[in-house]
Amino acid sequence: MAQKPSIPSGTRDFSPIETAKRSYIFDTIKSVFKTFGFQQIETPAMENLSTLLGKYGDEGDKLLFKILNSGDAFSKLTTDDLGNSNAAATKVCEKGLRYDLTVPFARYVVMHQSEISFPFRRFQIQPVWRADRPQKGRYREFYQCDVDVVGSTSLLNEVELIQIVDEVYRRLNISVTLKINNRKVLSGLAELMNAADKLTDITVAIDKIDKIGLEKVKEELRERGIADSAIAVLEPILTLSGSNADKLSKMREVLKDSEVGLLGVQELSTIFEYLQNLNLGCKVELDLSLARGLSYYTGAIFEVKANDVEIGSITGGGRYDNLTGIFGLPNVSGVGISFGADRIYDVMSQLNLFPESTLVGTQVMFVNLGKQEELASIKLALQLRQKGVAVEVFPENKKLPKQFDYANKRDTPYVAIIGESELQQGTVALKNMKTGEQNSLQVDELTSLLLKKLTVNL
Amino acid sequence: MAQKPSIPSGTRDFSPIETAKRSYIFDTIKSVFKTFGFQQIETPAMENLSTLLGKYGDEGDKLLFKILNSGDAFSKLTTDDLGNSNAAATKVCEKGLRYDLTVPFARYVVMHQSEISFPFRRFQIQPVWRADRPQKGRYREFYQCDVDVVGSTSLLNEVELIQIVDEVYRRLNISVTLKINNRKVLSGLAELMNAADKLTDITVAIDKIDKIGLEKVKEELRERGIADSAIAVLEPILTLSGSNADKLSKMREVLKDSEVGLLGVQELSTIFEYLQNLNLGCKVELDLSLARGLSYYTGAIFEVKANDVEIGSITGGGRYDNLTGIFGLPNVSGVGISFGADRIYDVMSQLNLFPESTLVGTQVMFVNLGKQEELASIKLALQLRQKGVAVEVFPENKKLPKQFDYANKRDTPYVAIIGESELQQGTVALKNMKTGEQNSLQVDELTSLLLKKLTVNL
Repeated sequence: MAQKPSIPSGTRDFSPIETAKRSYIFDTIKSVFKTFGFQQIETPAMENLSTLLGKYGDEGDKLLFKILNSGDAFSKLTTDDLGNSNAAATKVCEKGLRYDLTVPFARYVVMHQSEISFPFRRFQIQPVWRADRPQKGRYREFYQCDVDVVGSTSLLNEVELIQIVDEVYRRLNISVTLKINNRKVLSGLAELMNAADKLTDITVAIDKIDKIGLEKVKEELRERGIADSAIAVLEPILTLSGSNADKLSKMREVLKDSEVGLLGVQELSTIFEYLQNLNLGCKVELDLSLARGLSYYTGAIFEVKANDVEIGSITGGGRYDNLTGIFGLPNVSGVGISFGADRIYDVMSQLNLFPESTLVGTQVMFVNLGKQEELASIKLALQLRQKGVAVEVFPENKKLPKQFDYANKRDTPYVAIIGESELQQGTVALKNMKTGEQNSLQVDELTSLLLKKLTVNL
Repeated sequence: MAQKPSIPSGTRDFSPIETAKRSYIFDTIKSVFKTFGFQQIETPAMENLSTLLGKYGDEGDKLLFKILNSGDAFSKLTTDDLGNSNAAATKVCEKGLRYDLTVPFARYVVMHQSEISFPFRRFQIQPVWRADRPQKGRYREFYQCDVDVVGSTSLLNEVELIQIVDEVYRRLNISVTLKINNRKVLSGLAELMNAADKLTDITVAIDKIDKIGLEKVKEELRERGIADSAIAVLEPILTLSGSNADKLSKMREVLKDSEVGLLGVQELSTIFEYLQNLNLGCKVELDLSLARGLSYYTGAIFEVKANDVEIGSITGGGRYDNLTGIFGLPNVSGVGISFGADRIYDVMSQLNLFPESTLVGTQVMFVNLGKQEELASIKLALQLRQKGVAVEVFPENKKLPKQFDYANKRDTPYVAIIGESELQQGTVALKNMKTGEQNSLQVDELTSLLLKKLTVNL
């Protein structure tokens, strides 16, 4: 009995059209990264579990996909282990699938530090895997597109990442707002609240303000042991309005007694100064309620929202000061952002932003009308292909309506016909499948006409 | 204590230069596939083990990487299971990493048959994983580049795949020979040897002729129970020399009483007839000792060798008649080939074939000489980037030799200098890092000069 095939829950097949749309996003992002002088690296899908465990918190550890050791994996396992899945897993699995691109990158920098010229500007576009409960918009395998500079504390790096965001979304034609804040400002606020030791609790709570609103955030802060008096200090800051300059001057006043807080304000000011000279297309907004959950951020933090679609952030990142420390290379500061390809895809689908050229596979299909006709077609196809046109020759001499139906279903824009009379006259009939218009052309005319309209965009 | 990081044996990190070279290979292959109207799909890294098991023989089953079920994986395991790693693995693992792209493709075609217009021309470029013993040139994670047409028995498909091979290697500048044979010819020979039931044994043995030589193949055939008289029939065929036409006419004679054998000869003749009209750059050679190990081939089989490097085949494939049958869709014939990116990489490295443009990341680096100079640099960088030039601005005002050293180490071809005098005069000094030549240019001149020489090739 044949089995009915399926794929694991939370994973996806990508059809030709989906793959083409996704490639359009990846290629656009990649080409912007390249114009900023970033270089691509790739790391293995599998990392040693010792590299991954303990880097994403207890919750993250549980979401790692572990790979069974090959060979006689179970020989080390005892009956006692069976009661404890964690202990058992450690004995039968040494490897896991990467959970993000950040930890593998830190591992890469440490392993290859002698080959790298710092500042190291790298990008990486690869899938990651998480054993999360699958749900709408949340997958167990998905791509991340990360771009980072490590080994430079200059704020110009932050500015260039903002320029990259601006340029990527300009090319993708998505209207966005970039929100920026600084962890040092949040640290300063925590000092002001007499809760410097609770910075993580505060950022975790603030981080939810978009989803749950101010009142619930205050509730959560109370539950996490923040005094009402401290919350009263924080509240007006979270709801601060006005221009970026207004907000900055207000914060400079509020944080006047916090060294770290003022440093954060100064970093933000410097970034805004740069941006004034760079004519960005997107709006950059200082958002003092922006916190970003990840505890490793230490300076600027970013998040990008699509203006015309209700969806979570489509890009995010920030500065971190000690990512490589855990692998034995301390004091390497870095800053990076990550583009969320799946959400960008959803935004572009909803707004119908994929250019038509992305959706075309084969550009011209030659119908197949018999031996001699076929031969003339494949010779001509060869010439067109060498000039970069995507050409198909229908492989069988089937009834013409069937062949046209095939071209139609695949949205092929042109069908070329070489029949008996065309063969005699050395011509080709070209049918525009959208308009239905059909013209008889000399072979040379066909080539130059098609070249004007079509070339493979790789 | 910081841990010293490492990666699992048999896996690789790819540095910027390695990734750029690999991308050059993938992009070239991809763009040829596209000009032949093939469309890309992607399938998940993880497949259900029920999809993978039993498809690659017992040996293949052992080489599958299995993924531990998430959650309490070991609760189903009993003490009895511990003695039997296979049984235990089945209870704690439901998923595995894909072993090749062929089985996932067959699974895809069956699952999505209602959305597909046949003939379905697809390509797929993704990594696969095998728990093989790692050794030189053999990895546990490697990419495959597969291109297949399913749902058409026309030999034009075989011909187009040969054209694709020719065009890919023409573009990569690798001189190759394509060897072709036909499984039906081998079936006919087995009939002639009175050993039709031993076709698999015969092909497995013949397949090794390149590695172990004729005498050892004969020995192995004997060991596999083939009579000496039968080997005497086979031997002159395996060593047949002469032109393709000579070999075909010889085989037509030898196989005159075998229906299947003659069909195979006819298929080969038809393919060669097509090729005569197509002006291939590479040599196509009928090699009657070519067998290809995989048992699912039923018609034409191909293998490609690099002419100037001693290395195994760099591309291979063939026609299969029932790949989707096991998933419930019988009678779908297909033909496909697979490019081996790692071996192609090795060939190109040995012959120094990577074009220099592939190896350049950043094309121009602006040095950083202070606040005002930096600002002028980043404004100019922005203009250049928008025109497609890959530009970097050194992010810190370090000593000039350090900045030049950085550019040198990264093989950046040009360094642009905006210092005090350039700032006053509105000029830029451009240094060619190879020749050492330095010129003072107006901003407009710089832009047009660089555009002539450099644009990001994506």
